[in-house]
Amino acid sequence: MIPPSPASVPEASLPTADRSLFHIISPKQFSRPLLDELCELTTAARTLAKSRHGARALQMLLADKRAMLYFSQPSTRTFLSFNNACHILGIRTSEIRNASTSSEVKGETVEDSIRTFSSYVDVIIMRSWEQGLAERAAEHMNSIPRPVPIVNAGSGKDHHPTQALLDIYTLDRSFSDRGGIDGKTIGLMGDLLRGRTARSLAYLMKNYSDVRLVFIAPSGFEMQDDIKSHLDEHKVEWYDTDQLEEVLPDLDAVYVTRIQTEWDDPDSPVQVDYSKFQIGLEQVKSMRSDAAIMHPLPRGPELHPAVDADPRAMYWRQERNGMWMRVAALLKTFGVDDQFRSIYQDHNIG
Amino acid sequence: MIPPSPASVPEASLPTADRSLFHIISPKQFSRPLLDELCELTTAARTLAKSRHGARALQMLLADKRAMLYFSQPSTRTFLSFNNACHILGIRTSEIRNASTSSEVKGETVEDSIRTFSSYVDVIIMRSWEQGLAERAAEHMNSIPRPVPIVNAGSGKDHHPTQALLDIYTLDRSFSDRGGIDGKTIGLMGDLLRGRTARSLAYLMKNYSDVRLVFIAPSGFEMQDDIKSHLDEHKVEWYDTDQLEEVLPDLDAVYVTRIQTEWDDPDSPVQVDYSKFQIGLEQVKSMRSDAAIMHPLPRGPELHPAVDADPRAMYWRQERNGMWMRVAALLKTFGVDDQFRSIYQDHNIG
Amino acid sequence: MIPPSPASVPEASLPTADRSLFHIISPKQFSRPLLDELCELTTAARTLAKSRHGARALQMLLADKRAMLYFSQPSTRTFLSFNNACHILGIRTSEIRNASTSSEVKGETVEDSIRTFSSYVDVIIMRSWEQGLAERAAEHMNSIPRPVPIVNAGSGKDHHPTQALLDIYTLDRSFSDRGGIDGKTIGLMGDLLRGRTARSLAYLMKNYSDVRLVFIAPSGFEMQDDIKSHLDEHKVEWYDTDQLEEVLPDLDAVYVTRIQTEWDDPDSPVQVDYSKFQIGLEQVKSMRSDAAIMHPLPRGPELHPAVDADPRAMYWRQERNGMWMRVAALLKTFGVDDQFRSIYQDHNIG
Repeated sequence: MIPPSPASVPEASLPTADRSLFHIISPKQFSRPLLDELCELTTAARTLAKSRHGARALQMLLADKRAMLYFSQPSTRTFLSFNNACHILGIRTSEIRNASTSSEVKGETVEDSIRTFSSYVDVIIMRSWEQGLAERAAEHMNSIPRPVPIVNAGSGKDHHPTQALLDIYTLDRSFSDRGGIDGKTIGLMGDLLRGRTARSLAYLMKNYSDVRLVFIAPSGFEMQDDIKSHLDEHKVEWYDTDQLEEVLPDLDAVYVTRIQTEWDDPDSPVQVDYSKFQIGLEQVKSMRSDAAIMHPLPRGPELHPAVDADPRAMYWRQERNGMWMRVAALLKTFGVDDQFRSIYQDHNIG
Repeated sequence: MIPPSPASVPEASLPTADRSLFHIISPKQFSRPLLDELCELTTAARTLAKSRHGARALQMLLADKRAMLYFSQPSTRTFLSFNNACHILGIRTSEIRNASTSSEVKGETVEDSIRTFSSYVDVIIMRSWEQGLAERAAEHMNSIPRPVPIVNAGSGKDHHPTQALLDIYTLDRSFSDRGGIDGKTIGLMGDLLRGRTARSLAYLMKNYSDVRLVFIAPSGFEMQDDIKSHLDEHKVEWYDTDQLEEVLPDLDAVYVTRIQTEWDDPDSPVQVDYSKFQIGLEQVKSMRSDAAIMHPLPRGPELHPAVDADPRAMYWRQERNGMWMRVAALLKTFGVDDQFRSIYQDHNIG
Repeated sequence: MIPPSPASVPEASLPTADRSLFHIISPKQFSRPLLDELCELTTAARTLAKSRHGARALQMLLADKRAMLYFSQPSTRTFLSFNNACHILGIRTSEIRNASTSSEVKGETVEDSIRTFSSYVDVIIMRSWEQGLAERAAEHMNSIPRPVPIVNAGSGKDHHPTQALLDIYTLDRSFSDRGGIDGKTIGLMGDLLRGRTARSLAYLMKNYSDVRLVFIAPSGFEMQDDIKSHLDEHKVEWYDTDQLEEVLPDLDAVYVTRIQTEWDDPDSPVQVDYSKFQIGLEQVKSMRSDAAIMHPLPRGPELHPAVDADPRAMYWRQERNGMWMRVAALLKTFGVDDQFRSIYQDHNIG
């Protein structure tokens, strides 16, 4: 059985996509200048942290701040990435990692829970099964006297904005001596119907010139029409295919994704032949020598561990980039990016 | 079916209720001078933290201390409030938030578990389903060579002393330009039989002059006789009623509480018409213009969200006060209140 | 039914047992000079932390480091001991305390999970039900470009190296005015078949001269042959007995252990008369006046709480020593032991 498609997220009442950030809810907030700035901050933060002195300076930046990680949808990777991004900046963290530890058992509304968290901390990083919940939380914050920023760490099947940011950063770095993302051909492969990382990444491509997207998916798991319309509107070229071998030699990057079985109806799990949508040593042979192989991880059979040793494998780097991109996003959210830049420059001069 | 009433807690072998604190177990420990001092410390800590410099100074006060949050009874709010109070003071925290993560599965006694925690940390903040457990833990600490303070974050149906402290603080602030709590008429509404917050707050009223308490509860959920006898002994006036509308116009504050269904026998849940014990916009109209509406949260249908926007709604402030009152309590428990005062004065002068 | 015996761990491809440490996987890594050095560091760290100034200096040592505590086998005591050891050194911690919070639900391999953790943190402290898993993790780390150290906090029924270290330290301190561990007679009592602490401690005895080991166990729970062969090879004397009363007066130390029922087949739990393998006030009477009574805790009926007040009871001290020994081990793993020593000397001179 083919799973139902997610409804598209309604346009949020979010701050204009200029170069400031308070809530981080949707890829819709990111303009090209902001994306470029976040990439610059990410690289600077990584570089600064390499020296002990720099790492200490980073840790002092937000040392008096406190964060809440509210993960009612469990996620090891995203949780750890955010938690350690906070620690890098000196932010103290509190956590809820499943709904059962929470007041939800006492029947509290999400609005009341979020407002409660905002009583104690300076930022709420949240992930949930429910689509649109982060946006609802941000709207509630905007209605109370003492709002704190909401960072969406994934809500429902739709967007996962910080994942999209780290993917952008990894693409940008992979093509750093080839003019960046502009002009590249990028394949997105796997469960494009439900994989929110692929959706968010495709969405952001409007910010780059002459990008071609190739959607490589089994029948029934194609990229949804809302994203395709959006790309059409912004004149981003895209193609659908289920023939991986045919398109692989032309790709500058292939973004491999996992089948999202956790969204399946448990009574009628999806039955699809996924064997044609896998990257192994054989497939890598046909790729460009300067191509980038990416994956949001965790992986299943769609990406063979033997590929890890290939210099084109970028996914482990991509994972680590995630932590540093989240550091950059938090710098913006707390408005300390300029303070960070002056520390960074002092360290490079000193 | 009417649930059984909790037995009253036996008089603890606690330190005399002077102005020092080690363990924080029961409202019985709090004299008027100590309550006034804790209110003063709470306001000072909140004020100091408003400047970045002040927040950093607070974080250095107990930066070499470690706390254990042992919450075998889950509670998001109280957990977060204590955890962040620790973080404000620089205390590092470790946590157990349900019994299943703990050695209890290996059959260890509570005494051994508590002594184990005391091997690793400098304070144990604990919450449990079992009445008197915090007191037992404190007594065990008093019998070993290297005791650490026990802070009761709620044990069983009885007392919840730091909640009572934050309620006192919120009342005191709400009446700050009307002479404080002395002489006020305070209504306590809801499940007074099992709501430990209402019990603890009523208990503490003996420390204030000319207070009148109005217990507003459905039949079968009235305030228990142990508290009433205690109030009689200390000449605190009290009344029972089930007619909210009648008494509402006379109240300086109404303290609304939730029905504590988690204590119900699951095989025979309580069947009560609670509709007459709810505060909504209609009820608020009949209240004094300077009245305070309080609630320990989380709330159910007894307090309508539309009331949030009314200036008399104090419950969100009350919740946030909880974190700062816990900061104050920890300052006393660690005996750094004088050191804190001198930092506070330096900041105000500088 | 007698439980199956654990297979012995294969010789690890570990760094030679000199005085450096990266991964901490097995007691096989510890030579006498390294053991002596770790004991020296443990005492120095405990001493330094007694002054506030010293505690702060310790906290600065690794303040820019981050640790992952990956405990797929729950353990309150070992978790808290490591978590607080990290906090003493200023290390920020992230945790997984049961498998259900983790990506394992998404079918990720352990190798991928460990590599993910290594993307975010500087050390991975892990505990699992699966024998050899820490070793596998260390081997995987050795194969990737950016390895972080793995610290084994217990894997399967086999070794638990930091527990063995703290036991060595406690024995060494208990005999500090009697020439240390050399020449002593040490009884190991209880479930020696499955108790990994007893196995690891016995293993390490080869590093001391003229030690005699007495294995006191019910039939079917004797120390396994792999350990006995190892002792024979290194000329460490050992005896088997099931007569506690007979041997007790001769012991310099008795190391009591718990029956490890959590390894039982739930359908056929072990049925053994354990009443002859218990230490109470009666048994203590027959012991040497300078003997040491040890236990890895948590305890069951094999060690009566009345013994706690006896000056020979070392187990609570042993538990606390565990945290400090883990501080020492982390100093070595991060290679800051020399830096620590110079801080320690400055404090003692100043």
